[in-house]
Amino acid sequence: MNYQLILDEISQEIQPLLHEGKVADYIPALADVNKNQFAMSITLFDGTTHNIGSTNELFSIQSISKVFSFTKALKIYRISLYNRIGKEPSGNPFNSLVQLEYEHGIPRNPFINAGAINVTDSLISHYKDASMAYEEVLSFIKAISEESSIYSNEIVANSEMLNGYRNMALANLMKSFNNLDNETKEVVQTYFKQCAIEMNTKMLSRSMLYLANRGVDPITNIRYISEPQAKRINAVMLTCGHYDASGDFAYKVGLPGKSGVGGGIVALVPNLMGICVWSPGLNEQGNSLVGTKALELFTTKTGLSIF
Amino acid sequence: MNYQLILDEISQEIQPLLHEGKVADYIPALADVNKNQFAMSITLFDGTTHNIGSTNELFSIQSISKVFSFTKALKIYRISLYNRIGKEPSGNPFNSLVQLEYEHGIPRNPFINAGAINVTDSLISHYKDASMAYEEVLSFIKAISEESSIYSNEIVANSEMLNGYRNMALANLMKSFNNLDNETKEVVQTYFKQCAIEMNTKMLSRSMLYLANRGVDPITNIRYISEPQAKRINAVMLTCGHYDASGDFAYKVGLPGKSGVGGGIVALVPNLMGICVWSPGLNEQGNSLVGTKALELFTTKTGLSIF
Amino acid sequence: MNYQLILDEISQEIQPLLHEGKVADYIPALADVNKNQFAMSITLFDGTTHNIGSTNELFSIQSISKVFSFTKALKIYRISLYNRIGKEPSGNPFNSLVQLEYEHGIPRNPFINAGAINVTDSLISHYKDASMAYEEVLSFIKAISEESSIYSNEIVANSEMLNGYRNMALANLMKSFNNLDNETKEVVQTYFKQCAIEMNTKMLSRSMLYLANRGVDPITNIRYISEPQAKRINAVMLTCGHYDASGDFAYKVGLPGKSGVGGGIVALVPNLMGICVWSPGLNEQGNSLVGTKALELFTTKTGLSIF
Amino acid sequence: MNYQLILDEISQEIQPLLHEGKVADYIPALADVNKNQFAMSITLFDGTTHNIGSTNELFSIQSISKVFSFTKALKIYRISLYNRIGKEPSGNPFNSLVQLEYEHGIPRNPFINAGAINVTDSLISHYKDASMAYEEVLSFIKAISEESSIYSNEIVANSEMLNGYRNMALANLMKSFNNLDNETKEVVQTYFKQCAIEMNTKMLSRSMLYLANRGVDPITNIRYISEPQAKRINAVMLTCGHYDASGDFAYKVGLPGKSGVGGGIVALVPNLMGICVWSPGLNEQGNSLVGTKALELFTTKTGLSIF
Repeated sequence: MNYQLILDEISQEIQPLLHEGKVADYIPALADVNKNQFAMSITLFDGTTHNIGSTNELFSIQSISKVFSFTKALKIYRISLYNRIGKEPSGNPFNSLVQLEYEHGIPRNPFINAGAINVTDSLISHYKDASMAYEEVLSFIKAISEESSIYSNEIVANSEMLNGYRNMALANLMKSFNNLDNETKEVVQTYFKQCAIEMNTKMLSRSMLYLANRGVDPITNIRYISEPQAKRINAVMLTCGHYDASGDFAYKVGLPGKSGVGGGIVALVPNLMGICVWSPGLNEQGNSLVGTKALELFTTKTGLSIF
Repeated sequence: MNYQLILDEISQEIQPLLHEGKVADYIPALADVNKNQFAMSITLFDGTTHNIGSTNELFSIQSISKVFSFTKALKIYRISLYNRIGKEPSGNPFNSLVQLEYEHGIPRNPFINAGAINVTDSLISHYKDASMAYEEVLSFIKAISEESSIYSNEIVANSEMLNGYRNMALANLMKSFNNLDNETKEVVQTYFKQCAIEMNTKMLSRSMLYLANRGVDPITNIRYISEPQAKRINAVMLTCGHYDASGDFAYKVGLPGKSGVGGGIVALVPNLMGICVWSPGLNEQGNSLVGTKALELFTTKTGLSIF
Repeated sequence: MNYQLILDEISQEIQPLLHEGKVADYIPALADVNKNQFAMSITLFDGTTHNIGSTNELFSIQSISKVFSFTKALKIYRISLYNRIGKEPSGNPFNSLVQLEYEHGIPRNPFINAGAINVTDSLISHYKDASMAYEEVLSFIKAISEESSIYSNEIVANSEMLNGYRNMALANLMKSFNNLDNETKEVVQTYFKQCAIEMNTKMLSRSMLYLANRGVDPITNIRYISEPQAKRINAVMLTCGHYDASGDFAYKVGLPGKSGVGGGIVALVPNLMGICVWSPGLNEQGNSLVGTKALELFTTKTGLSIF
Repeated sequence: MNYQLILDEISQEIQPLLHEGKVADYIPALADVNKNQFAMSITLFDGTTHNIGSTNELFSIQSISKVFSFTKALKIYRISLYNRIGKEPSGNPFNSLVQLEYEHGIPRNPFINAGAINVTDSLISHYKDASMAYEEVLSFIKAISEESSIYSNEIVANSEMLNGYRNMALANLMKSFNNLDNETKEVVQTYFKQCAIEMNTKMLSRSMLYLANRGVDPITNIRYISEPQAKRINAVMLTCGHYDASGDFAYKVGLPGKSGVGGGIVALVPNLMGICVWSPGLNEQGNSLVGTKALELFTTKTGLSIF
């Protein structure tokens, strides 16, 4: 299949949508991003890549980082991780406290904010140090993207913290249910540091290969997680990867994926490729408007939906 | 792959679990079923079938019928169907009124009870008659299973109606939001009649082929729905097919599927086969306990998860 | 105190508010009422009355009837009534199903719709007949208002039934929790018949005397209920009498009272008088806008708040 | 009326209940209290007091302090206080986040935890300093109880802070809705300091006189608040003073009152007296079990219910 041609077509078809959507504006560092940007990259198992748009542009990966921290925690804790986090879709906004209270401090899944904060907490407990936990997640990201230059944007992380009351509320609520080991502020800071990591679509499409290939990086042949674990992370991405629009994403795109408020979306075609698309304008559910459309066009044009 | 051997292994491995689970007991007709029963069938695109257990035993398909009525309604109304029903996982029990009230009478998806009742209502409106709507769904089921003897068990349907206050509450709540066209009692009766249809695992595994093959029955070559519609029904089955255990099913089994309180579960492997498993003992979420385990063993042994 | 002068003052002061508020419009029979109407009556223990405005005008008493049916049920069932109905404020709109589901079909109090429907059900069970239950409530109302001509407006009752899906949903939900004895339709019809009773402010202010005088009608000396029961009905009126504005009413008016969507509000000053005010324009919480203001002016001018 | 005799009778009648109830055990300082204790005091307008039991024993006033901070805030902000706090019963546990999220960070009333934390925040903003805000509340308590020795127990306050994750969650959630001015930790610490104030039943019954006498201390003749404000505080106590058992308290006791988890309950009879009862064993709703019963006996024996 001529993937480059398909990317070119997509790039043209999404142009009229670029002015739609709304850049995340809850912190200045994200609000200042120009929303007329678009980039899309795919990486095949032999390392071949196809790119369109501003694929060298770094952006804040935000919630996409939840896939990486969840991978680390699942590898460490295996199924015992589910004593503290569920794996069901939430049917609620990503930062709601309602369900968390009704369900006694057990977050619904690792991709809503409460769940991801809980994952970070579990990593801090394991590594016995917040910085170490962060460094381990970063190292993992560097390894799977084969890119050593990746860093977290301190201004973004600090800015998140200054406005992170909702996330502090989630952490404190979990702590009140004895479902958080470490101090709430430290956990949330570490979580924000991880969210503030910056990458581009090239790096991120590359980073999805271990999930597309049953746990083994097809280029380096390094196994990062077991085959069942890889499949299960994909399943959680499909059912819970896009907040309260996860069903819609599965319906329209039909691929496991994860979005972030920075405008990035990662996805993967099992046994074939990693994908990343980026465009900062968000739809009402907080997912990249153009990014979602681009992926829908991609599976329509290629027939590569998992369904 | 030697599917028969795999089914034999599964049949042996699930034996210790047969005494677990709890038969649905809200109506006598279901409560009287012997829970030590098990059947599993797969049907390939060339018509080959593999069977194990009581595969000729008829059982109440219950919520599995929602797949068929949803197919009919989606074919008729196309995307305008989503003006009255969503496609997001609910994160709530299958018969909850809470979310339905907060979301102004729009059911989250076509597979929770409110959504399926709404689908039935849309069919009654289209066919301008409740019996006609029921007959059209039944004809469709007969066609896709190539089995003309299928009927609805009147005793079960009447028994459901006598105990169907929760479903009447859902219908009345939607009606109060002007999201139900026809009289509540007629709609719910038609819905129960459809749920009380009886089939066996052979018929049901056969009936999944149109969804496994992008809308076209691979044996008769009849196209029932468009390719995108077939994929989208599969996506909704994956994200919403098992009530509040949909995430868990996607995680453990990794196939689009739909369960019913009669103990049946249908599933499919895209481009390959239809599957049905039946065992009446239910787990806490109301899905067949042994059936779920059998499907998990199936994808583990065959590697046929979509992820 | 010169009550007539005070009523005259109130009547003048509320004039500018008469065009505000919104007449209940969910059924034609209520929507057609002219909202520029006002009436207020007080009845003292010796039978003296003071009136201002259209005090002979009959209006639909609607939820005010809940006080009377609750009185009957409390007399019959005593504290065992609280096995099926609570006595706590709900903190939710009067017709919400959310709390009713979370609390397993036990309505919060007898003055939200679910609670009043449940009270009606308990009366039907006691009198073994729906008509009889209605007639007993009506006889009681005639007795305490010393007015034999009172009737229920059939057009209003039927009109309510045609639009009563929300109440049917509440009844069916309680029935699904085994907290309703009789058939849902019969119970709701009886409830609507009771709500459609028509009275004027003279009759209603008279009807409050038994509650103001510890259970005994001070004019006829008939004891209708025990002293503790009378006090407790007053307490429930104070904490739950005005839906989700009960706190505000207690705060501003400081008297036990009960409002109805027909625009009437009954209230009482313990050991002193019964009060009724009527004006059909409703505020956002569904209570008479002018009526609430008139009562606030009354307690401010007279100092007769219970606090 | 022979109040002393009545107190003696009550003291005997509650003896069998003293072993029931459960001392608050969420912090060690409260868990260590011996629950077989009982004290009850009433203070009349002329300064006469009647006492029974351990009326010199100091206990943690906890949520009773909310009455005093609310008084201060209402005096300062008058009705503009209701821009940030409601006055409706919540229908939910005292520390629930659910309603707070649905209602966009506006607490239902000043007596649930979120509301009281918000009141403290408003005082810190007014006095421009957390210590000053605390000192002002303390001074007010000293004035109305005519007792200069009152202090806050630092061990209790610190212990609360170490376990105060739920309250920190509430504060952070309000902050995320821009309904909290100051830093969450400072506000919650100040709130806990105020809750850890220790008093006995003599002091507390004395402290209620300004509310029983329309804002003016009947002994010193000092006006602390206006008459309407006093009545309105009483109304909020009646509708919201006992968490999710406020309706039950109004029903059984029929007096404005406020309870604390330390086992104290203050109440008042308008125009007549202040009351305080203390017994550390709590009922399921978190109110003193024996204290509630003692007050119910008191209004039954004296007929002093406001209804």
